[in-house]
Amino acid sequence: MTTGDRTIHRKATGFRWDGVAELPYKEDDRALFKSITRQVLFSDPEMRGELRYFEVAPGGFSTLERHEHMHAVLILRGRGHCLVGGEVKPIDTRDLVTVPPLTWHQFRATAGEPLGFLCMVNAARDKPQLPSAEELAALQRDARIAAFLRNEPR
Amino acid sequence: MTTGDRTIHRKATGFRWDGVAELPYKEDDRALFKSITRQVLFSDPEMRGELRYFEVAPGGFSTLERHEHMHAVLILRGRGHCLVGGEVKPIDTRDLVTVPPLTWHQFRATAGEPLGFLCMVNAARDKPQLPSAEELAALQRDARIAAFLRNEPR
Repeated sequence: MTTGDRTIHRKATGFRWDGVAELPYKEDDRALFKSITRQVLFSDPEMRGELRYFEVAPGGFSTLERHEHMHAVLILRGRGHCLVGGEVKPIDTRDLVTVPPLTWHQFRATAGEPLGFLCMVNAARDKPQLPSAEELAALQRDARIAAFLRNEPR
Repeated sequence: MTTGDRTIHRKATGFRWDGVAELPYKEDDRALFKSITRQVLFSDPEMRGELRYFEVAPGGFSTLERHEHMHAVLILRGRGHCLVGGEVKPIDTRDLVTVPPLTWHQFRATAGEPLGFLCMVNAARDKPQLPSAEELAALQRDARIAAFLRNEPR
């Protein structure tokens, strides 16, 4: 999807932008994600990358997933924790997070405040894969990852 | 140039980042730019876009240039003004600026404070073109652009 909006100047009001739709993710019974919205800031046929802004409400989280394409993340607002591969990290405003190919990852707003982040991706990219029950169990065998997935990061 | 650094978490300290070099632009006699530094935040062979952070000290400015590739800009710090094509705009923190192909553009820290911005570009891109004397004169025939280029935006 490209928006192709070439308006030269789009003003910010807090963490919303002129002419940019805020897309809620529909909550689903599988609880794959919670309380997260998405805004596509830059997407154009001439650009090989896209820049999106995601915001997770306190206690919410992004989808636990992996894919061939990479994520390049800059925390724009607040604090929280992320899981990338086998690592759980506390993250703070302006920190950078790199998600390599085919690496399980998730962002959680664990600090009682919204967690907002920019995410650069390739415009042409593969679909995310969700963990199977076996893959989830394998992740949970690591006590630190299990605590993160319970929203109780250490 | 790609850095290919896949360190998962790089902490920010103010507007500097762990493991990211701050590249000053050498000032030159032509005064094509002034008091600007660059940090490459994300650049990887697997990513078709790059994300850079530029910071202009008060009174400084980026190069007045154009090129086939686009710029997708988010103001990360401070306020200032930008020129994009025929338009001069005041810009503030988190505002978005789109620079279409082959469009003259420049960013100026006109507010007595540093102006810092993220800029997403295609990893594969053409070299910037500088204005000829004739092209500069044509831009200056617009009173508002001339004032901007004198660092006195209206």
